[in-house]
Amino acid sequence: MNKQHNYAAIMAGGVGSRFWPGSRESRPKQFLDLLGTGKSLLRQTFERFQKVCPDENIYILTNSRYREMILEQLPEVDGDQVLCEPSRNNTAPCIAWLAFKLYKRDPHANFVVAPSDAVILKEEAFTAAILKALAFTAERDALMTLGIQPTRPDTGYGYINFIQEGIKGVHKVIRFTEKPDATTAEQFVKSGEYLWNAGIFIWKAENILKAFSTHNPEIHDIFSSINREINTVDEQAKIDEYYPTCPNISIDYAIMEKASNVYTLPADIGWSDLGTWASLHVESPKDDHGNVVNTQTALLEETSNTLIRVPEEKLVVVKGLEDFIIVDEGDVLLIYPKSKEQEIKAIRNRITEEYGERFA
Amino acid sequence: MNKQHNYAAIMAGGVGSRFWPGSRESRPKQFLDLLGTGKSLLRQTFERFQKVCPDENIYILTNSRYREMILEQLPEVDGDQVLCEPSRNNTAPCIAWLAFKLYKRDPHANFVVAPSDAVILKEEAFTAAILKALAFTAERDALMTLGIQPTRPDTGYGYINFIQEGIKGVHKVIRFTEKPDATTAEQFVKSGEYLWNAGIFIWKAENILKAFSTHNPEIHDIFSSINREINTVDEQAKIDEYYPTCPNISIDYAIMEKASNVYTLPADIGWSDLGTWASLHVESPKDDHGNVVNTQTALLEETSNTLIRVPEEKLVVVKGLEDFIIVDEGDVLLIYPKSKEQEIKAIRNRITEEYGERFA
Repeated sequence: MNKQHNYAAIMAGGVGSRFWPGSRESRPKQFLDLLGTGKSLLRQTFERFQKVCPDENIYILTNSRYREMILEQLPEVDGDQVLCEPSRNNTAPCIAWLAFKLYKRDPHANFVVAPSDAVILKEEAFTAAILKALAFTAERDALMTLGIQPTRPDTGYGYINFIQEGIKGVHKVIRFTEKPDATTAEQFVKSGEYLWNAGIFIWKAENILKAFSTHNPEIHDIFSSINREINTVDEQAKIDEYYPTCPNISIDYAIMEKASNVYTLPADIGWSDLGTWASLHVESPKDDHGNVVNTQTALLEETSNTLIRVPEEKLVVVKGLEDFIIVDEGDVLLIYPKSKEQEIKAIRNRITEEYGERFA
Repeated sequence: MNKQHNYAAIMAGGVGSRFWPGSRESRPKQFLDLLGTGKSLLRQTFERFQKVCPDENIYILTNSRYREMILEQLPEVDGDQVLCEPSRNNTAPCIAWLAFKLYKRDPHANFVVAPSDAVILKEEAFTAAILKALAFTAERDALMTLGIQPTRPDTGYGYINFIQEGIKGVHKVIRFTEKPDATTAEQFVKSGEYLWNAGIFIWKAENILKAFSTHNPEIHDIFSSINREINTVDEQAKIDEYYPTCPNISIDYAIMEKASNVYTLPADIGWSDLGTWASLHVESPKDDHGNVVNTQTALLEETSNTLIRVPEEKLVVVKGLEDFIIVDEGDVLLIYPKSKEQEIKAIRNRITEEYGERFA
């Protein structure tokens, strides 16, 4: 396969507030080495796409605050490949922006969009799936989403309902369901007709632009109006002016749920969205009592199923905790029941209301 | 009362290992501001004795490791007033050493011995009690120990059994009982004939020397043999040579339990030995749920009767802990059930075995 028309867009503008206090405004989740691999999640994502397309075809979608950190973690990337959104408008506007850029640069551009902060354990299966998806979308007006085989009735994920017949292992998508209740999720998983939506999309620039034109002309019109400046020195000024006028909407709501040419490729790639501390606990190696501890200097007694994350070299002594999250980030110490972790985002908001950016 | 013959000896050589990881080899409990008063326990103890005798009559018994820290916290004190034990031999040898020094300096020396790390809430009552005790011992061959009215059947303290008849509120002591079991402690408190032993002793140098000569001639002989060098430039060299040959014994076992001229003065001085984190919890102001927190930046939910001590300015978020100790000392984080705090000393020993002085 000729990879010159392959492109990748890594979404790296989020904060990952459910990972607070590990994830901070000044250093979001994707910049952290949460798995202790020696590489940040962003770096891992980037290296994955190096097998799919040339370095100069990998774009990072973020905002200006994180620009320097990205260029530092990804020295292979040129400043032009880092797209800084002037406002947070969810995924649809920034995908549209990139689609206009890519189409103008290369009318055959065929690209993957992926989050910067997911875990993918099976690297080779991932590369194979992405290349297969790109081969599929290169030849058809198809909007593709990678489908993850569900391993449990998770109520925190989005589900893709597909028809079992397809071309080359690719299936037609019927509908999406965001975060179903527990009973529904169980039915979904049992039926065998549902996959998890990993937020990994594949399509040609030409075709996603056509979909915007049909299903969300508002966003399409905004970028059309500044198309002359795109890929020129005047681009950022125009973006800064017009981008914030885009509706705040996800690509799922803006396009995927409306379009009829949506396909999915089931992929067994060891994926986890790594959305919360509990999911990090699930994905990490554990001691005999189910504890995940990031320091060698720990003394745990009568403690189980607990996630402990402290600064390197810190000694931690814990007794009598079950199913807790302990995160020590130097200026913040969080000790929280793991089963209540969905509250952490709200806790962070309360802290931000009270102390501003100091601990956010 | 003429205070020129009054002296004080502050015992400041211990580590306070039950306060680990707050208390460390390099910075023991007495040098910490555990109560958040802005002054260390040592400093508070020193200021208390400034009302009892001239600054130059206050001696600090410690070891060379803490000498500089003491001179820094007590700038009123001259280097000669800081006595550095070359080895840890418990209280009897260092009291004997000081008694020889004081008697040589002033044959009328009448002195108080007190720990550097206790809490005394009623400062005025303390001064009055000490002056009363000194007045008593100035005129008699009496060995005096301050007696604290027990407020609960504490099994961690030593008890003084006394006869209810005395001179000027001073009572004769019958016997001492160290750390009785719970049933015995309850009987003691009910009987009204027992007081807590606070380790605060009062006597004339002449009389405690006489008691050593009678009840522990071994220690007496060692210091007699170097009496010529005491209070001279050659003192420390002789001490370094002979002091470690003293038996390792407390003043209670060496003298108090054997002597027949032992008296006690019941004193209501708001005393606590502040021996453990739990006792700090007892002595500190609490929030509505019985929590003691040393930072303004804390968010506690469903958390009660818990002691939280973190570095200044650190944000702490805790949910779902009852009766815990949380101590964050920068390089060490301890999360421990308060009811199991007697294990902390052993934990510290295990840590020391494994990591040496690094976290001790």
